[in-house]
Amino acid sequence: MLIERIERQLAFLAELDKLKSVVRQSPLINRERRENSAEHSWHLALFALTLAEYADGVDALRVLKMLLVHDIVEIDAGDIPLHSTKRNQEHVTHAEGRAAKRIFGLLPPDQRDEVLSLWLEFEARETPNAQFAKALDRFQPLYLNTLTRGGTWTEHGLTELQVNERYGPLIERGSPALWKIAWALIQQHLNGR
Amino acid sequence: MLIERIERQLAFLAELDKLKSVVRQSPLINRERRENSAEHSWHLALFALTLAEYADGVDALRVLKMLLVHDIVEIDAGDIPLHSTKRNQEHVTHAEGRAAKRIFGLLPPDQRDEVLSLWLEFEARETPNAQFAKALDRFQPLYLNTLTRGGTWTEHGLTELQVNERYGPLIERGSPALWKIAWALIQQHLNGR
Repeated sequence: MLIERIERQLAFLAELDKLKSVVRQSPLINRERRENSAEHSWHLALFALTLAEYADGVDALRVLKMLLVHDIVEIDAGDIPLHSTKRNQEHVTHAEGRAAKRIFGLLPPDQRDEVLSLWLEFEARETPNAQFAKALDRFQPLYLNTLTRGGTWTEHGLTELQVNERYGPLIERGSPALWKIAWALIQQHLNGR
Repeated sequence: MLIERIERQLAFLAELDKLKSVVRQSPLINRERRENSAEHSWHLALFALTLAEYADGVDALRVLKMLLVHDIVEIDAGDIPLHSTKRNQEHVTHAEGRAAKRIFGLLPPDQRDEVLSLWLEFEARETPNAQFAKALDRFQPLYLNTLTRGGTWTEHGLTELQVNERYGPLIERGSPALWKIAWALIQQHLNGR
């Protein structure tokens, strides 16, 4: 029984290694290559630790856990770029749900349920913790873009209005203070280019 | 005052991007490339969440925070491989101390002091939290090695005795239960090769 438990835990941890090979759209600041979803998740966790003061009434441990697991489904479903014109939300939701079932299902049932509940809470964006986590998940690539001559915005030829529309609502809902900062960064970037 | 605060926080978060370019010795399980220290830190955080039950009396949030920041000094000091014959502990300690001062010093003073205290606690390995975090930091590459035909052990021609000596004490101190698991993995690996 105990042996089966640790074997399931180890199988899950080995599976996670694959997230290091899921490549996102955002470039590293040095522009040597694009970021992968594992290192993005680490970076986001540090954003949460550093910027927690810009959200009210959030539980730091739960936000951290959510950010650490939020992209694991991409091992099967891939990273779906925010600015892709082929983005089909229904298809994405379906593929990610199947991925969650398979990958979290590697764990013993009690841990599967815990990780699944973190991921579902993040996806539903209804609790303050999930809203703050989601705000950071938008803020981090926004900040990277302002540091890399517009990064994916330039690549996709986005207007200022499109940038505001795609980042604003989710960042502001999770943290109005963070959206003020993000907005200032966007303006700085636009004035500097 | 507030503007200076957020500017310092953002400067710290941008600096962290460089950890994604610090390459470690351990290969990915698919052996496409070696792991970098940012994605390693993410993987370790998931080890902590998944394997917390094998340590007694640890504070999950503090262990997570410690693991998320423990390698940041490598941005300046580099990753010093465990099996390197050129490892000079005094030199490493000095370089990492300078790195901590510079990089954590980018933050506002209250946050600098918090991150510094996490890193110093991890390095000192005296508290149960730090001992468990350190045990995981040894266990993760050990596990990756058993999944990649010996990985860095094969590369460096390590004997079973050397493997036990380099991993055993730190893992066992942080979690005797985890060392039993690690030892079983080493035996499985040796019998299978």
